[in-house]
Amino acid sequence: MRIGILGAGNVGGTLGRLLARRGHTIAFGVREPGRAAIAELATLTGGRAGPPAGVADAEVIVLAVPWASVPDALAAAGDLSGKILVDATNPLLGGLRGLALGTDRSGGEEVARLAPGARVVKAWNGLGMQTLARVAAGELAASGFLCGDDAAAKQTVGELVGETGLVPVDCGPLSAARMLEPLAFLWIHLAYRVGLGPNIAFFLHRG
Amino acid sequence: MRIGILGAGNVGGTLGRLLARRGHTIAFGVREPGRAAIAELATLTGGRAGPPAGVADAEVIVLAVPWASVPDALAAAGDLSGKILVDATNPLLGGLRGLALGTDRSGGEEVARLAPGARVVKAWNGLGMQTLARVAAGELAASGFLCGDDAAAKQTVGELVGETGLVPVDCGPLSAARMLEPLAFLWIHLAYRVGLGPNIAFFLHRG
Repeated sequence: MRIGILGAGNVGGTLGRLLARRGHTIAFGVREPGRAAIAELATLTGGRAGPPAGVADAEVIVLAVPWASVPDALAAAGDLSGKILVDATNPLLGGLRGLALGTDRSGGEEVARLAPGARVVKAWNGLGMQTLARVAAGELAASGFLCGDDAAAKQTVGELVGETGLVPVDCGPLSAARMLEPLAFLWIHLAYRVGLGPNIAFFLHRG
Repeated sequence: MRIGILGAGNVGGTLGRLLARRGHTIAFGVREPGRAAIAELATLTGGRAGPPAGVADAEVIVLAVPWASVPDALAAAGDLSGKILVDATNPLLGGLRGLALGTDRSGGEEVARLAPGARVVKAWNGLGMQTLARVAAGELAASGFLCGDDAAAKQTVGELVGETGLVPVDCGPLSAARMLEPLAFLWIHLAYRVGLGPNIAFFLHRG
């Protein structure tokens, strides 16, 4: 398959190498195709590098530029009508601060505001209870993501979470609820809207 | 440990039963403690049920009411200053429509707007590329979450995602990027802010 990749950095470069290894033809579309690192990447993948518009004839186009460059990269690529465009980006704010869109607050933080002085820990919100029961029975492995601002409270809750069969994963401060709540909704979405059913669970592999 | 649970529905009931089985003393705090189902639950767990304020002496209090009831439940529970309060809720909109807070748009949908007519699929955005390389080498198992509005485009991209070593998980329409982007940021957060490092990957267990 002819695969065009907008961007030849960490994401574009890795995807290009992995896909080239599977026999696909790679074209990188970048602002400065003449740069040595990009020429090297093109050689390595047996592909080519050119301006963004050069990817227009690919069957699949992968968008792999920083979020701030997305509008320019897409404008430079020209008309992509009918094309398969894979968005591999995230709308990241600089400095790992978060996402530029959505998730700027959370239920967990709202709870903390409503219960002033309480040591709030977000936990057990990530999967259906019917599923948790199966996890507790050892029938399904699942991570128990939790977060909070009080270390001792989180330690205690983490042990309780472990007792319900989940493998605890400390996700840091309470503001991490901005991610754990969407993760929980992804679980709901996959189980009940996509139709996978409730016998699913997220597990964080470490290796 | 004395554990108070605000709410005795699906979430509160399941957590109460699981924790009672591990030897903890459970107190349910509910609006209508006299209801038969709640009395039965209290008996089943060897615990008790009473008004929300009755959980105030517990060492750990679990908030397990519907999102709309959170303000009332917390107000009725009284002063929780210094208490460990576990938020097991999600700020859900009715009808599984999504979250009431945050995640009301996504980078994926913005990309679709910027590339009119393109068949946008969100994919490969969920883990670091150094990690993807290890996944592709068979050293770590990871799911490849993807979403998009064009079924044929998604099928094609799903096969490519599989070729990079990820186990594809079709997450439905492009709007699911509202959850996949926070999931991706959770990966970043755990790897680089919490300090687990990049050798982590989310896997969706099915069982």
